[in-house]
Amino acid sequence: MLNHHISSQFNEELQDVNTKFMTMGGLVEQQVANGIRALLDTDASLAIDVQFQDNAVNRLETEIDEALTLILARRHPAAIDLRMVIAMSKANTDLERIGDEAAKIARIAQNLCEEGNSPRGYMETRHIGNQVRVMIHDALDAFARLDVDQALRVLLADADIDREYQSATRTLMTYMIEDPRHISRVINVLWVLRSLERIGDHARNISEQVIYMVKGLDVRHTSVAEIEEKVQER
Amino acid sequence: MLNHHISSQFNEELQDVNTKFMTMGGLVEQQVANGIRALLDTDASLAIDVQFQDNAVNRLETEIDEALTLILARRHPAAIDLRMVIAMSKANTDLERIGDEAAKIARIAQNLCEEGNSPRGYMETRHIGNQVRVMIHDALDAFARLDVDQALRVLLADADIDREYQSATRTLMTYMIEDPRHISRVINVLWVLRSLERIGDHARNISEQVIYMVKGLDVRHTSVAEIEEKVQER
Repeated sequence: MLNHHISSQFNEELQDVNTKFMTMGGLVEQQVANGIRALLDTDASLAIDVQFQDNAVNRLETEIDEALTLILARRHPAAIDLRMVIAMSKANTDLERIGDEAAKIARIAQNLCEEGNSPRGYMETRHIGNQVRVMIHDALDAFARLDVDQALRVLLADADIDREYQSATRTLMTYMIEDPRHISRVINVLWVLRSLERIGDHARNISEQVIYMVKGLDVRHTSVAEIEEKVQER
Repeated sequence: MLNHHISSQFNEELQDVNTKFMTMGGLVEQQVANGIRALLDTDASLAIDVQFQDNAVNRLETEIDEALTLILARRHPAAIDLRMVIAMSKANTDLERIGDEAAKIARIAQNLCEEGNSPRGYMETRHIGNQVRVMIHDALDAFARLDVDQALRVLLADADIDREYQSATRTLMTYMIEDPRHISRVINVLWVLRSLERIGDHARNISEQVIYMVKGLDVRHTSVAEIEEKVQER
């Protein structure tokens, strides 16, 4: 995809921003993993580190958008190159929001370290947390390899997460009703699950951008069944 | 700002997408107002209507992005025109997310209609809801009039919302501990407050894009005090 450019300068610029995007993706993936680990292992210093590292994510977001704007202003990309710039601009926002959610999880982890840990809902957190981490990884992999099938698998995984999130929320609600002394702790775990569910949504958004980039199809607000159909038509 | 173009065709295209963006903004503002009203007045049919109308918001998001991509591909905008296209592309995502949050509030309103209403936390919802509506309105107004001072006021308002959201959350937590029979209802109100807080964040994002568009400054991840300083330097 990157070979066909007449201008090797443009080629290089697009490669550079792509490399930066993947660096940011790797960092954000790590942030989510560390946020969850800080919570489950009641590791306060890791929790603080994750919140601190969010600055690095934010800096990358700014730098990527700057690079993309320069490409638009100087190189006037067309067709798939333009779609790549647009997709990266949108996915950049999603990566930054995933970073925000990881920092939120870490902040809650830090509070729970101070209050003493509460294993209520930790099994659910571990389980959904692992699924969400796989989703981020697969979405970034689909982006790097322009792999539409991989992107479709992420969309399917997001539907799973939504179901499991609903079920975990109901379980936690029962814990609270059974033992109101732990309401405040359990609510903190609820917020974590909510963040994980949001992270799943962002991974789905990134995958939708992969399909846009490769196929030129805007598949937002479309069911997975419809998307599969549309993708096969192209 | 729109007068200086040599190509009147470009001028027209930019005006058209701007008009569509403002239409979407007005619709989203209405969706938030109706979502809150459906909750506070236990109006199930309004709640259903808001969820249905989210499709119209989604369609506008798609159309605006399509129009912006065409402008980039054909017109190669530069300087403030390019920034306007980029700002609108980012703010378009925020408007769509505000629409999503309004639909979430409406879904909760519908559930609460079925369960019978619970006035716990409604005062807080009304209060924060009104503030958030003003924020959306002011952010869109700042966008339409390229008004940096108005955008700055929205950023300040968002800091208020965050404080009030924290305080309302603590109040609702107390309600739950005092009367565990209402846990499930109160949690629903907590989700509504969370959505309102997120809507405030999106209004802030839109205002940051106004500053980017007019001043060429990326003020994301920057404190309001720093932003004010930077803006004055230009």
